[in-house]
Amino acid sequence: MLYEQIGEEVRNYIDQLTKPRGSLGRLEELAIEIAKMTGERFPRVTPPGVLVFAADHGIAKEGVSAYPQEVTTQMVLNFVRGGAAINVFSQQIGAIFAVVDVGVAVDVDEEGVINEKVAYGTKNFAHEQAMTKEEVERAVQAGYRQASAMIDRGIRCLIVGEMGIGNTTTASALLAAMSGRCVAELVGKGTGIHDEAIAHKRAVIERALMLHQPNASDPLDLLTKIGGLEIAAMAGAMLAAAERHVPILLDGFICTVAALIAQRLNEQVVHYMIAGHESVEPGHHVALQLLNKEPLVRLHMRLGEGSGAAVAFPIVHMAMAMLHMATFSSANVSTGSDHHE
Amino acid sequence: MLYEQIGEEVRNYIDQLTKPRGSLGRLEELAIEIAKMTGERFPRVTPPGVLVFAADHGIAKEGVSAYPQEVTTQMVLNFVRGGAAINVFSQQIGAIFAVVDVGVAVDVDEEGVINEKVAYGTKNFAHEQAMTKEEVERAVQAGYRQASAMIDRGIRCLIVGEMGIGNTTTASALLAAMSGRCVAELVGKGTGIHDEAIAHKRAVIERALMLHQPNASDPLDLLTKIGGLEIAAMAGAMLAAAERHVPILLDGFICTVAALIAQRLNEQVVHYMIAGHESVEPGHHVALQLLNKEPLVRLHMRLGEGSGAAVAFPIVHMAMAMLHMATFSSANVSTGSDHHE
Repeated sequence: MLYEQIGEEVRNYIDQLTKPRGSLGRLEELAIEIAKMTGERFPRVTPPGVLVFAADHGIAKEGVSAYPQEVTTQMVLNFVRGGAAINVFSQQIGAIFAVVDVGVAVDVDEEGVINEKVAYGTKNFAHEQAMTKEEVERAVQAGYRQASAMIDRGIRCLIVGEMGIGNTTTASALLAAMSGRCVAELVGKGTGIHDEAIAHKRAVIERALMLHQPNASDPLDLLTKIGGLEIAAMAGAMLAAAERHVPILLDGFICTVAALIAQRLNEQVVHYMIAGHESVEPGHHVALQLLNKEPLVRLHMRLGEGSGAAVAFPIVHMAMAMLHMATFSSANVSTGSDHHE
Repeated sequence: MLYEQIGEEVRNYIDQLTKPRGSLGRLEELAIEIAKMTGERFPRVTPPGVLVFAADHGIAKEGVSAYPQEVTTQMVLNFVRGGAAINVFSQQIGAIFAVVDVGVAVDVDEEGVINEKVAYGTKNFAHEQAMTKEEVERAVQAGYRQASAMIDRGIRCLIVGEMGIGNTTTASALLAAMSGRCVAELVGKGTGIHDEAIAHKRAVIERALMLHQPNASDPLDLLTKIGGLEIAAMAGAMLAAAERHVPILLDGFICTVAALIAQRLNEQVVHYMIAGHESVEPGHHVALQLLNKEPLVRLHMRLGEGSGAAVAFPIVHMAMAMLHMATFSSANVSTGSDHHE
């Protein structure tokens, strides 16, 4: 599925550029990885696309978030009006931006919000299954469809973001199930809860896992029992990007958990993922390890929305620019002894 | 010298933006730091300026580099023709770019190269002093003058780069003297030498330090005995930026050693520095620790030219963009419990 041969050609070409071998470190690796993904010797990653999926979580009723549930809707409106972090960052990187309601708890009648609502939020998985298998499938398809539409509009790199009050709890439950790690290791303060609330959040997740006993390798079972609609949609979006050979720049904790779900839907999709950043949410480190991805930046962020990926995007862009440097022969620069091994 | 009050105002303002408190991590700190430096509530860092100083090093005669000395000149020509890594990165960040010959070993008659030549390279400090005190002063002044000229042209953030075959040896000697750390801890492969050559490079530096016994707190003594013309100029450029309240985004090992020299010329200049990246050159970590600066990115780079700072620049730019987000009240978003402590 990857263009290995073109990746190797790019690797050799990079050694002809006017710089010591390997001296651009991770940028060189990025250029090779993206050449393999896209099959292009001089890949383009602009314009990137930022696709934010919003949904509500029944688990929010357990008091696991620092914010009331209506903030999901309020932030969706903030997204279409351009006031959120992901808006200013998207603008900075010249991204095509869209926000998709895949399961907000109320009707959002606002121009600019793409309506793919599957349900008015998930059920509270502390007591019952989060959703039906059919809802999972519809959410995955909505994500797939919207990412495909963005790719049709010409994006060359996909950033998938999310908004959903309570979704670090959902993502933590999914990760605990998939990783087999203990909940206490994975759960942090989310967007800003305090120690007592963290203990409560952990207990809620532990009880839910006992109740549902999800199958760690079955993405449909995981999402049905303890999933989120936006997480399902994000996984679907990643499937579309991989299928179309478009690099996926991962955001934070929720997004990386969605990536693990996508991996369980199709193992190949992982080859199209680049880890944008590592957030301070403790589960994120574990999720990145499971994916075997090294983040580009660690900036102590924990916002979501796609913001960490957007901040990392210029590094990917720089790696593509690197390929347009002069070569030793074109610039008449002497090669060093590292070229004569 | 810093606008502390404005920094505190910006800190409070950031907590009103539509995101959980502290959730943009290092970006929030950057915005506050730059507000303190510039005295602006909504600071601009664009356009950045990239100022590359080139000079040769007599110590290169000791066979400490993977590249022959003529590469300094060849790369200066590559810079003005736009083929080097720093060119493609400068273009990407919309930087005003200039290259200054402050001590290349031959005459460089090429349009676009700013001539501030102080000497045809330094002397070989394995055997004699690198330069005279007067040459040090002229090089510092050249850097100061060129950075001032760029600031006059409107740059809002200064990146100082360098080119000089042999200059990791010079910088390692300076850092060993300033830090008191043993040479073996600081010296790595530079732009690409192998184990045997590293041992030789370390021995050359140790002997030079024994010979000259430079005064660790006297920047003139350090530069005279074991310095480099471009390192002196970089330090001078930093003095100009700090004086004009322009943030300095530090590049890699050589640049950070120049920053330590600048600090010894004027302690205040450190408050205007932001560490762009951490290179794989082992001395860079030590130099950043001495400056008490945490790098924005670690991408296994080791090129110099200002390239690491240029790659980090978009993160600084994002931090400024963040300040243009909506506030909770302007966007009608409910605040979370983290706002009611």
